[in-house]
Parts: sequence; structure tokens; C-alpha cells
Amino acid sequence: MTDQDSTVSPVSLTAEDRPDQPPVSPELVELYRGFEKALLVPLWTRIGDLMPEHPRSKAQPHLWEWKTLLDLAGRSGDLVPVGRGGERRAIALANPSLGGRPYATPTLWAAIQYLMPGENAPEHRHTQNAFRFVVEGEGVWTVVERDPVPMRRGDFLPQAGMNWHAHHNSADEPMAWIDGLDIPFQYDVEAQFFDFGRDELSEEEHATPDRSRSERLWGHPGLVPVSQFGRREGTPLLCYRWVDTDAALTDQLELEREGHPGTVGPGHALVRYINPTTAQDVLPTIRAQFHRIVSGAETTPRRETGSSVYQVFDGSGRVTVGDFSWSVRRGDLFVVPSWQPVSIRSEASLSDSDSGALDLFQFSDAPLFNKLNLFRTHIEENA
Amino acid sequence: MTDQDSTVSPVSLTAEDRPDQPPVSPELVELYRGFEKALLVPLWTRIGDLMPEHPRSKAQPHLWEWKTLLDLAGRSGDLVPVGRGGERRAIALANPSLGGRPYATPTLWAAIQYLMPGENAPEHRHTQNAFRFVVEGEGVWTVVERDPVPMRRGDFLPQAGMNWHAHHNSADEPMAWIDGLDIPFQYDVEAQFFDFGRDELSEEEHATPDRSRSERLWGHPGLVPVSQFGRREGTPLLCYRWVDTDAALTDQLELEREGHPGTVGPGHALVRYINPTTAQDVLPTIRAQFHRIVSGAETTPRRETGSSVYQVFDGSGRVTVGDFSWSVRRGDLFVVPSWQPVSIRSEASLSDSDSGALDLFQFSDAPLFNKLNLFRTHIEENA
Amino acid sequence: MTDQDSTVSPVSLTAEDRPDQPPVSPELVELYRGFEKALLVPLWTRIGDLMPEHPRSKAQPHLWEWKTLLDLAGRSGDLVPVGRGGERRAIALANPSLGGRPYATPTLWAAIQYLMPGENAPEHRHTQNAFRFVVEGEGVWTVVERDPVPMRRGDFLPQAGMNWHAHHNSADEPMAWIDGLDIPFQYDVEAQFFDFGRDELSEEEHATPDRSRSERLWGHPGLVPVSQFGRREGTPLLCYRWVDTDAALTDQLELEREGHPGTVGPGHALVRYINPTTAQDVLPTIRAQFHRIVSGAETTPRRETGSSVYQVFDGSGRVTVGDFSWSVRRGDLFVVPSWQPVSIRSEASLSDSDSGALDLFQFSDAPLFNKLNLFRTHIEENA
Amino acid sequence: MTDQDSTVSPVSLTAEDRPDQPPVSPELVELYRGFEKALLVPLWTRIGDLMPEHPRSKAQPHLWEWKTLLDLAGRSGDLVPVGRGGERRAIALANPSLGGRPYATPTLWAAIQYLMPGENAPEHRHTQNAFRFVVEGEGVWTVVERDPVPMRRGDFLPQAGMNWHAHHNSADEPMAWIDGLDIPFQYDVEAQFFDFGRDELSEEEHATPDRSRSERLWGHPGLVPVSQFGRREGTPLLCYRWVDTDAALTDQLELEREGHPGTVGPGHALVRYINPTTAQDVLPTIRAQFHRIVSGAETTPRRETGSSVYQVFDGSGRVTVGDFSWSVRRGDLFVVPSWQPVSIRSEASLSDSDSGALDLFQFSDAPLFNKLNLFRTHIEENA
Repeated sequence: MTDQDSTVSPVSLTAEDRPDQPPVSPELVELYRGFEKALLVPLWTRIGDLMPEHPRSKAQPHLWEWKTLLDLAGRSGDLVPVGRGGERRAIALANPSLGGRPYATPTLWAAIQYLMPGENAPEHRHTQNAFRFVVEGEGVWTVVERDPVPMRRGDFLPQAGMNWHAHHNSADEPMAWIDGLDIPFQYDVEAQFFDFGRDELSEEEHATPDRSRSERLWGHPGLVPVSQFGRREGTPLLCYRWVDTDAALTDQLELEREGHPGTVGPGHALVRYINPTTAQDVLPTIRAQFHRIVSGAETTPRRETGSSVYQVFDGSGRVTVGDFSWSVRRGDLFVVPSWQPVSIRSEASLSDSDSGALDLFQFSDAPLFNKLNLFRTHIEENA
Repeated sequence: MTDQDSTVSPVSLTAEDRPDQPPVSPELVELYRGFEKALLVPLWTRIGDLMPEHPRSKAQPHLWEWKTLLDLAGRSGDLVPVGRGGERRAIALANPSLGGRPYATPTLWAAIQYLMPGENAPEHRHTQNAFRFVVEGEGVWTVVERDPVPMRRGDFLPQAGMNWHAHHNSADEPMAWIDGLDIPFQYDVEAQFFDFGRDELSEEEHATPDRSRSERLWGHPGLVPVSQFGRREGTPLLCYRWVDTDAALTDQLELEREGHPGTVGPGHALVRYINPTTAQDVLPTIRAQFHRIVSGAETTPRRETGSSVYQVFDGSGRVTVGDFSWSVRRGDLFVVPSWQPVSIRSEASLSDSDSGALDLFQFSDAPLFNKLNLFRTHIEENA
Repeated sequence: MTDQDSTVSPVSLTAEDRPDQPPVSPELVELYRGFEKALLVPLWTRIGDLMPEHPRSKAQPHLWEWKTLLDLAGRSGDLVPVGRGGERRAIALANPSLGGRPYATPTLWAAIQYLMPGENAPEHRHTQNAFRFVVEGEGVWTVVERDPVPMRRGDFLPQAGMNWHAHHNSADEPMAWIDGLDIPFQYDVEAQFFDFGRDELSEEEHATPDRSRSERLWGHPGLVPVSQFGRREGTPLLCYRWVDTDAALTDQLELEREGHPGTVGPGHALVRYINPTTAQDVLPTIRAQFHRIVSGAETTPRRETGSSVYQVFDGSGRVTVGDFSWSVRRGDLFVVPSWQPVSIRSEASLSDSDSGALDLFQFSDAPLFNKLNLFRTHIEENA
Repeated sequence: MTDQDSTVSPVSLTAEDRPDQPPVSPELVELYRGFEKALLVPLWTRIGDLMPEHPRSKAQPHLWEWKTLLDLAGRSGDLVPVGRGGERRAIALANPSLGGRPYATPTLWAAIQYLMPGENAPEHRHTQNAFRFVVEGEGVWTVVERDPVPMRRGDFLPQAGMNWHAHHNSADEPMAWIDGLDIPFQYDVEAQFFDFGRDELSEEEHATPDRSRSERLWGHPGLVPVSQFGRREGTPLLCYRWVDTDAALTDQLELEREGHPGTVGPGHALVRYINPTTAQDVLPTIRAQFHRIVSGAETTPRRETGSSVYQVFDGSGRVTVGDFSWSVRRGDLFVVPSWQPVSIRSEASLSDSDSGALDLFQFSDAPLFNKLNLFRTHIEENA
């Protein structure tokens, strides 16, 4: 990918009629030519773009419908083999204003991955932090550091950088899920390493246990295995099961109904997935959260530095991001760029499940901003 | 700045002859058109660029000669006024392979700033972390949060995000110095806020004290003022004076000569500037260090994730970065992209000062990599 | 409690025949009298006691039988009312070599607490960190910050300093449990504050819910409630249920049988209770852990700085601490002083449950040592 | 030292007439005898002492006059040799209400140490954290990890646990200084290890350099040696020189006079010594600070959890601690027990130096309280 021109002509005179720019003269033209020749760019011609009063995202709010994604992924299942080189049958969201690059936002990658019955995705590892989230189906095991982890609807599977991993589909049906990574961020800061692993897993790794070993060690609330304990930057818990997430959300809403604190806003439950060895975000660069909004409730418009990708897990509703607004339903993915206000309204439809609540999975680049002292948030007052 | 195309045509068939790509067929062409229409990009066509085996920097090693910079800055002094809107007479290094953008590296901004006698650069503040380093001259005061700080040869002045700051030149001569900021990084992750301050400083702030108040509070070794103490992400010490840096480097080399630990390699002293409230890097996103290499010594080639900009402070020598090699002298600036090996040889010349050592100021984006668990370094074995 | 004499006569001449002491002379006698008069003590007469080559604990290993404790607690139930002033019907272990003080070890308090049907223990709060552990029975609710928490066999209820708390027994039977606190430590360093609360709880607080609100917020593995999240030095999770502890121990032993890491030694599962907001010990000064040792297994003798109290939860076995050795069964409590080697052998008896494993709850002052850079451990080599 | 009785008779019936105690009856007497026999103590007879409403220190405010200390130390110099076994000619303050034990406070040891011309104190190391502070004289070098450090008036020399150290007096005069350690604290929690080192130092270690190697590496403000950098719990800077402390205090008072923040109260400058690798207290268990109070100023009465020892460095004044009040002059030492209010008034006398300020060195156990979430402070309102 070369998103840079090879010519170096950074200075333009089109700024000549701007009052904050120096008057154009033959000497100024010569000076600017000197800059170009010396590979220099004056701040005064660029400051408005480089140092805006607040973030003006290069990305655009956008919605991808799950039906479209799933249909194209299914056709790829027929036409595109999975194997070494291509590595994964993953198809990424390309934000419409990011120049065709496979970036959901300037820092985040989001893709649908698809595996046919009996297929294997070969082992590799990389510095990019990753996770999988399952909106429907089951039958695939992801094998992380030789530990097979079953994937089922509602499960969240984080996988910190440099863990070996592969996938195998042991079911009779294809399975699709969502991959999230920090590919664009690591591309920009140039941190990436990648190693190819074994082409075939061992028989033991093709096992299909109901729980991974990581869950047996780390999946007990408030308890850690002393033999394995120690601070790790990426979570050792490889799967956060839907049964737990659902229970936590249900509890928050019941506490609210009983008059106790628990929700982040009226009718709005929110849990964050955390690393049990640090009590911080599951991955060094990615935050993951799950929202439940009861039918009829609406969240207050809120801006944050940094960007998010959401996937509707259940229910339906209406989402407004800046100047964009969409009706959403199960599986749909949408993007919230940096500092764009987002609000979400839960609207039960006839086809919804009993609860009628709108359930959404969210991931974002918030850890970057938190760790670098750049995080800001703003609640819109007139909402 | 628009470094993205507006068209969205991410998928190319030029990959058709690559063995890791699916065979081209009418169905595949149709699938790829479906991807484009749906704003999707398949991983298998992009993985080599997005997820390389190790960082392959978009930036290029490059040297800017101080003489050229200073000459162009001087001509700008005559032609370009300093004032509100343009804000600063700063001229940035534009890496030759970064598309003409004013980026020294993908994350770092480096510029020469120039102020004529009696000039004032107006007050503003921004989330971008910044510093100034002075390779020659004196007479300018930078006023940070109303505290005037004199700038003199060898001084390093960090200034964390969202501190109000302005400059005034109280001398009879123009003065030039180097500005370093994390502008490209914050541009990419979209974290920027910027506020305009007062156009004129108060009379008190135009004072020209020999030391800033920050130094009187924080500039005593191993001692902190209890009334002000508490963790701050950016250093409250606004100037690190040359006399201290020089003494620390001299001490390291003397310890080495006496047979004790101190240097990082034979004849190679290295100090890091730190925040006295955290004992960590002076700025949340920027590391700053100072090297002294005795005449005849050469550093071992070393790779690091992340990029650096160096300025020669004194002496002369030969620098090799990847496939590039340059003779360097006082004031010259050069760039080391991510994972490119760098080695530096000190070569005294007739015009050098008595010591004959090569002194270099360096700044880098290492805190990003450290805090996000992405830092790696490698010493070349056959060097 | 006055464990100090009022006379001040620190210097003795009994050291006269020790070769490391100065020769006795009239001048030395006069000097030592001068020390006494001036309230001074020379190091050279005391160094062996004050600065030993390794910890020589003032405490002694000791075993208290549960049957004895429970019998005396029951008789106290008849004779000693619970109410304001005495505050709790708690009876503390007094280590036989600590001068009759109610200290299980030099830093830890351990007591049996007993509440009759219908009784209430009045509300108070204090800086002392506390927990309850239930070896048998149920029917008592502890109310922490107005949140009623049911207590049942196997449950661990930590309660950080300065949380308001009270207890009420809603059952038809008396109930006993173990209290652990850092009373001796806070007594020595003089950190204590204590406030009396309300004499009567509200009707709502007399509720007997199956789960506390704290568990509904914090008791889901790997998940935190965003509305409440933030670092707290004491855990907000007020009860760690037996069902979870048991499952975690079972998983570790099964992983061991399958050939995977999990246990701390052969047949020895060990979990630590942690604070979900810090991933560190549940209380600032107290570590709590739970051991399961399979029948026939024996732990390697191990020394640690700091002291522990253990309670047998289930099964039976033989415990050796330094020169002491006891057969232990359900409910028995024993003390391991600093740097005394401890080893535990699991010995199934006819009366044991099916599993035959020895289950032990342990608490210690390890966080003190960890935070102050004083923690050491040593595995005996010839065990 | 055995400050405990060997008999175990913890329960007394003297509480019979207290209304919060159960009525005395033959059954209660029998119950209490049962407690004694079983090594148990009921909380309800002890709670007032164990869990007071606020700290009631076992220690007492007390003043030791420097003249007395120095005189007795000098006589010890004649009568008591320094060597292996006794290890140091150190004479400790014994708080009048701590039973004759060599404890200045319940956690802190403070002693005068004295070395005759040509004497050597042999090498050892221990877990106890220590420092030296010099109120007058020079000529002694302390050798820490083979690095000779000269000691002169006003210098503060911290030495974290387990550093090898020895002393030698190279001057023609005896020299005295103050040692501070956490001996009582480590005695209570039983953390101590002690190793004997070499009886004789090497010739190189008998060198008398003007600065230690540690200062050459770590004594430059805001700068760290990259080759040695990394977090260490005890400071690697082995001496904090008077010239720096004096300058920092002078700067704070000048800033106050100019109308800027800097002092902790009117006319009251205060600096804290910190570890340059952590920006926290110099030692894991000990805080050290230096006060300067201008003539005529008085500090507001202030309580803190934890205890302090002060030494007057220069000037004179009046100190009030709880119910005690003393006139103080150079060298005098006094103790502030936990939660006792302290206020200090500076009163210039004819014999004082020009400045007339009262200078005081202070050390305390504050890090214990901070790290264990037990620190509290209170400013008296009606002062």
C-alpha cells in the first residue's frame, strides 16, 4: 500500500488569499521553492489542518449491514481457499473516507471472517492485538498457544500480540464471526512483527473441548491461579462467555429497577471486559465493552477522543453519529469516528426476542488515549 | 491535508499471478466488485503490506544540513511575519518518502523555529506534546503557564500538552532553535485540541529572569517541593540546562575510564531526560536523550521499534542508517525510521572543540511503544 | 494494654562476658548509667536480638481445635450479650508466646465470632482491614455499606477498612465463623480509627437476599461495571462464594491430571482471592488463599517472611511447622510464624468426604512484605 | 529482648464494673478460665485498647539534647571499641514510654554514631532500611556497595536494605552523625535478615573521593544514566548534598516573597528527598524531608498517622508536640508520635547564623501508611 505520493511538493501558494498568510511576492515564491528543494514545509501554511481546535476525523460514520457481509463472505467461501500466504478468509470494513484502505477507523481494523466445514486457518502470530466476537453460530475452535477455545454466539475472544493462533471448523456448517485488530494503528506507528507457524495443528489441538484451559485457570470470579499469576499486558483469559456477559447486564438493570447504582444511564447497562492480571483493558491497545439498552431508552449524545466500532448483537434500534443516522438490527456494524457524538435508541420490533432490549458489542482504541494522557469525553448538554 | 483519494476502489486484480491468491474467474471478479460496492477489502490481497514480518518503514533515513535550514529560516524572518493564525515561524522537516507531508517520521514533527529581535509568538495551547532544543544562540524566553524560561545553547525545554505558551525575543539578534512535537501521531489517532490564548503577554511575563520558576521548584537533584508534589504525566520542570547535561555526560565517561559502569558502550555516554514526578519520560509520547561519543568511538548498529530524530550538538562524525550514510557536523538533523539499524562514529575534525567528542541530542516516540507493550530492540551481531 | 514497663533501664551489664562487648570497668558502668539517665541504649548490647541473621519469630506455631473454640463460643452465647461497647461476640486466638495478647501472630488477629438466632451486632467502622470466612453453617447476613451479604459454608467475605458494617442472624440456629483482621499490625504502627454507627439497621438492610448487590456488580468473571469502575485499594466484591472457589480448585487438579500447568505442586491446587479493580490482594494488608491437597500428597517445606493463619475447611491431614506437628481436621486453626518452614500432608480418614482431599483456607500479611520490598521465600532443599 | 511475659493469662475480671461487660457470675468466671486454658481472649474485654477511636500512641513526645548525646558518644569513643559483633558505635534514643527498648518511636530507630580518627566500622548488610544525616563535622566515608561516599554537614545518605556498607574515618578528629533505621518496624513484623561482610575494605574502597560514583551517575537534576536506569525500590543516589538542599529551600522562600507558590505555609519551606528511579520516597519504609522556617514564623498544628523524628540542623525555636513543649537548638532531636499535633516556631537567637531561620531535618514512617492505604492528616482549625 502506498498512500503517499513520490513527488515532494509540499508547499502551495493557494493560501495566498488567506489573511493569516504572508503576502505573495517573488521573494516568497523563491523561498517556498527553497523549502521544497530542501524538503521543508512551513507550519503557517498547514497549521489549520494539523492542529485543529478539536479532532476532525478523516473517517466517516458508516453502517455495514450484516446481511451484505454474510452474503459476500459466503461467496468467498466458495471461491477463495484458506491457506498459507493469504492466511485468513477475512474481509475488512473500509471506511468510505479513508481512501479505500481496509481501515474501519484510522486505528482499528474490523473484518468478517468465514470458515467452511472442515477448514483450517494456519497458525501464525503477530504483534497486532486481536479479538474475535461471535454474533451467530458455533463450531469453530480457535487454538491459541495450543489451547483450543470453542467459539459460540455472544462469546468474546481476545488474543494479545505474539500469541500463536490458528482456527479449525469442526462443524457441518460454515461459521462467520468478527475479527477486530489494531492493524491500522500498528501500520502507522510501524511496530509490526509477524511469524508463520505450523501448517498443521497436532491431533490434541484439534480437540473440541467445551472450555479452554485458559478458562479453567482464569475464568473464576475474583480468583487467580497462584501458579500462573503475574502481571501480563494482554489477558490470559482467552474467552469471555456470553452466559457471564448476559448475567452481568441483567444484574445491572435489575439493580437500577430496585433503585441502586449499576447502570451508566437510565435503562443503559454497560460492562467492560478486563484482564484479570491487571484489572485493565483486555488488550494493550483495544478496549471492549458490551451495552444493553432497554426498549424505549436512548443514550445521551456523547463524544470521546478515539474511535469505536459497534456490532448489534440483538434487538433493533436507531443510531445517530454526527450527521448520520441509521436503523440497525442484528449483526449490523457501524463506526463512530473520534469526537463525533453518538446516541443510540432501543426500538423493539416484532421480530425481536422477548426482552426487546438492544444489545451491542463495542470495541475502541481508548487504551491508547488513556495511557498517553489524551483521553477526553464530553456529554452533549442539549441532548 | 488530504492524503486519501476520494474514490473507493480498494481491490485490485494485479495479484492474479501470485500463488497465494485465488485463481481469477468471472465469479471472483464479480465477488471483488461486490466488495468494492460494499466498502470491503479482503485481507488476502493486502496482508503482505499490512502485516509485514518486521517493520518496513514508510519513512526514509535522511539528513538535513543545519546551514540550509538556518539560511531558509533567516530568509523567512524577512518575509513571513509571526502572528495569530500562522502562530509560529516554524519550518518542518518533510521526510522524502512521506508524500510531502511535514513529518520527519510517521509520528514525529521536527522544525526549526526562528524569532527576530523584539518579536513575540502569540500564546496558545494544544494537546500536542512539544519541546524545544537549542543548538546555538540565546535571547529568547519561552513563557509556559506564565513562567518565563530563558533558552540558551544546550538547553532542553519540554512542554507537555495543554500548557499555555508563548515566546519573545528580547535580544538584538535573531534566534533559531528546534521544535519537536508529536503532531503526526496525534494527527493519525485524532486526539488534537487547540486553544488560542492572549495576543499579548503581561509585563511580568516579559521579564527575563536567569532561571524559570519551574527550575527553582524542580531543578534540584533528588529533591521535590512538597507543596507542589504529585504525579503529573508531563514534567513540571520546564528546562533542563546544558551545564547539567554536560556534567552528567562527563561523569559517565570518567567513570568508564576509571573502570566503573556508566556508559552504554565503549566511549558512549547517554543520559535520558526524565519527569521528576514520575521518573519516566519527560513527555507522555516523546523520549529525549543526549549522547556523547568520544573521538574515534563508534556505536554498535542497533534497531528499535519506533523512530528518532537526532541533532548534532557538537563535534563531527559519520552516521549510518540502513543503506544511508552521511558526514555530520554541528546542527545537522537526521532521521532514523523504525527498525532501521543506526550506528554513529565520532570523527574529530580540525575545527572541532578541544574535546573532539561528538555530542548528539535525540528524541523519539519510544514511550508509545513502551506503554503499549510494543517496544523491541535488536543489536546487530556482525557489526 | 500495656506491654511495656514504665521503668527505663535498658542497659544491662550481663553482657560483660561476651567477647564482642567492651571490658567492664568503673568508667563503663558510669557510661551505661549515663545512657540510662539520658534515655539512650547502645546498639552493641542489643544487635543480636534486634538484627538477627534471619527472622526468629516471637510467635510460636500452635494449633487450636475447632471443637474447643466452638464449645467456648457457644457458652459465650449464653453468658455474654452482644451490643454497643463490646461490639462483637468474638474470641481471639492468643499465641502462646506473645504474652497473653490476643494476637494469633505479631501482625494478625483471628477470632471465632458467634451470633445467636435473632441477634444483631451493631454497626461500626474502623481502619482495620477485616474478613470473615465460614467453615460451617448459614443464616447470618453481614451488612456492609447497607448491602446485606449472606454468609454460607465456604464463603469468604473481605471488608476493607472504613466500610460500615453490622451483622444479623435471621436463622433459628446460632452461627459461628472466623474473623481475620490486621489489629496487631495497626496497633503496632498506630494507624487506628474507629467510628460507632447506627444501633439499628433499617428494615431494608434486614433483608435476606440470596446475593449481595456487590456480587451482582462485581461477581462476573472478567467483567466490570463501567458505572462503578475505578481503582479501589480494598475490593468492592464483598463475597467470594464457595461454588466458585471449589470449581477453580477442581479445574486446577484436572488440568494437572491432563498434563497441563495449573497446580503449584503435585496434587496441590492453590487459588488467591483478588480485588477486581486492581488484580491485587483483596485487602491492603491481608492476603487470602485457598489450598486443596489431594489425598496422599504432601507440600514441600516452605518458608516465607511474614505470618499466616490456616483453617482446615475439609478433610484431614498432618501439618508440620518448624518443630511442631499436628493432626488436623475440619475447623482446626493453626499458625505459621515468620520464616518457619511449613509442610502439609493430606491424609484421608474414614469420616472424610468422598474426595478425601484436604482443603485449607489461609490468610497472611504478605501484602505488607510485598509492598515494602521485604518479601522472601525459601523452599527447603532436602524435603 | 523479651518484652512478653511467658505466662498466658489474658483475661481479667477487673472489667466487672464496666457497663459494656457481661455481669460477673460463677459461669462467666468459668468461661474466662476456659478461654485462658484454650489460649483465647475475648474481644469485648479489650476492644477499647485495641481499636481506639483514633491513634493513642504508646510513644511519648520527647526531646534529646545534642550536647548530652555528643558527650556520651565521645566517652563511648574512649571506652567502647568498634568491631565485628557490636558492629557500630551507635547509641539509640529510647522513647521514655516504650519500656526501655531502643525505639525512638514504635517504628523508627534513631541513634548517634561516632567514629574515632582512623577507625573502621566493619562491612555488613541487612534488610533494615537506613540513612545517615550529618549535623556537624566531616572526615568519614561510608562505603556502600564498594562506593566510598564522603559525609559532611548537611548531607543526607540513604541506604536501602541489603546494600553492603562499612565506614571509615580518615580525618584527625572524631566524627558523629545520626543513623535512622526501621529496626522497630522490621522487628515487629519479623522481616529481618543480616549478613556479615568483609572485615577489611580494599585499598580502593579506602579512597576519599570528593563525590561518590553514585552521585556522578544519579546526582544530575532531571537526568538519568541510561545504562543503569530501571525501577529500584531503594534509591541508587547515595548522597543528597547540603548545597542542593540549601538551594532548594532558599528558592522556595524567594518564590514566596515574589508572590508565587512554593512553600507549604507562610515562611515554611519544605523539600522531600526522592528516589530518582521511582519519584517516590528514598527508602521503602522511610520518608525524609527538610524544613526551613523563617525567623518569627510558626507552623500550623498538624496531626499525621505515623511517627517522626526531627533533628534541628540550624537556628533555634520552640516546638510543641501534644502536651509537651521545648526550646530547641542545633543538634537537638525530638519525637512526634502518631496523631499528636506538632507545631514549630522559629525564634532567632543572638548566636544564630545570619539568616536566623530554623532548619530541621525530619524522617518518618509515612511510606508504610501511604502504601497500605492508612495515611491521614489533619490540620488543627483553632490554631
